[in-house]
This record gives sequence, structure tokens and C-alpha cells, in this order.
Amino acid sequence: MTTTTRCAACKYFRRRCSSDCIFAPYFPANNPQRFVCVHRIYGANNIGKMFEGFPEQLRGNAIECLCYEAKCRIQDPVYGCVSIISWLHREIHLAQTQLAKAQAQIALLDPGVEVAITTPR
Amino acid sequence: MTTTTRCAACKYFRRRCSSDCIFAPYFPANNPQRFVCVHRIYGANNIGKMFEGFPEQLRGNAIECLCYEAKCRIQDPVYGCVSIISWLHREIHLAQTQLAKAQAQIALLDPGVEVAITTPR
Repeated sequence: MTTTTRCAACKYFRRRCSSDCIFAPYFPANNPQRFVCVHRIYGANNIGKMFEGFPEQLRGNAIECLCYEAKCRIQDPVYGCVSIISWLHREIHLAQTQLAKAQAQIALLDPGVEVAITTPR
Repeated sequence: MTTTTRCAACKYFRRRCSSDCIFAPYFPANNPQRFVCVHRIYGANNIGKMFEGFPEQLRGNAIECLCYEAKCRIQDPVYGCVSIISWLHREIHLAQTQLAKAQAQIALLDPGVEVAITTPR
């Protein structure tokens, strides 16, 4: 029955999954795609090496972030999640412009009113 | 004099840099750190494989993005550039809140005025 309990990483590599497998807690057997993504972008060896640098209690978060970035890179091979960062920067610029307009409108409606709202960084 | 003209990738691997080296245009000899970063995170083989998927005219952009993500991951091993995405999301939320306050203030100052400003997505 070993086959059914192998984690997604060991299943992918068609190897036995030991009880101390470093991938097992983060790549469950029921979600093989998760491992396929990070393996394709970072390579299993690099993932293993990076693991060593993660504090144990943050490994789950770190793997989530790696999976997210890998998924973005597969969806957008050229720009990866940098395209999301660019889009968010544009959104902030838009919001800042709208806010400046609103502040100008407030100042026009009541020059005495204190415009306490500050623009985001 | 081959040594001085080797690209940063070939220099790192202590190998000859051929005239058709795929890394040479993107990893110049005078910036070795750039290759060290992407190699550490993605591995040279994976970078090579990803190259094949990039349209030739976008390779420069793709390498820029990979270097950016790798640098973020080295600076913040757990969250990488996902921490920037989270921060930008918080900034947008803050801007939306400020904008909503400004719109409420406008409506209060002049209930007849049309608040044409829309909140960002």
C-alpha cells in the first residue's frame, strides 16, 4: 500500500516516500499539480536546498509563496508574478490620482476645511 | 584572453564561453552577481529550459523579471516577492479607504455634487 501514501513529490519521482520525507507535509498525494509547478520552475533539488534556509515554523508559508510564484511563471512565462506587481503599482497610482482629485474637490467646496487625508506612499 | 570575455554564467561554471552561448547577452561579465542570484534560486539548467519558452524578443524582459524575483527570494527567503504583492495589496486597501472617506466628505459638504470618482478595483 506504499503507493497510495506517497507524497506528490515522491510520486512524481516514482520513489519510496520515507517517514522523514521533507516534501511530504507540504505536497500531499491528493494535489500532484502543486509539486509539478514548483519542480518545473525551481527544480526539486533547489526546493530541497531552499528548505534548509527556511525556519521550520515558516516552511508552510514559504512553500505557499514558492507555489504561487511558480504558478504565475507558468501562466506568464515571461513576466511571472512581476506582472502582478506592475499591475498593482498602476492601481496604486490610479488610486493616488483619484485621491488627489477628491482632495482638490474638497478644498474647492470648502476652502476652510482641513483635508486630513494623506496620499498613500 | 578568453577568460576576460566569458559571460558571467560561463565564468561561474569555469567553462569556455562560445559565440552562441545563450546566457552571454543577458549575463555580462561585469555583473557576476546577476547570474549568481538566478542560479541560486532556479538553477542554471532550469534557466536554460525556461529560455526555450521565451519569445526571442522578450528574453531580456524575462531575464529581468527572473533576476528581480530571485533577488527578492534571496533577500526574503520565506516570502520572496510575494511580500511585495501583499504590501501593495495593503497599500491599495488603504488608498481605497482614504478615497471612500474623501467621497463621504464631499457628499457631506455638498449633497448635490456628483461624486464621479470611483474606487480602484
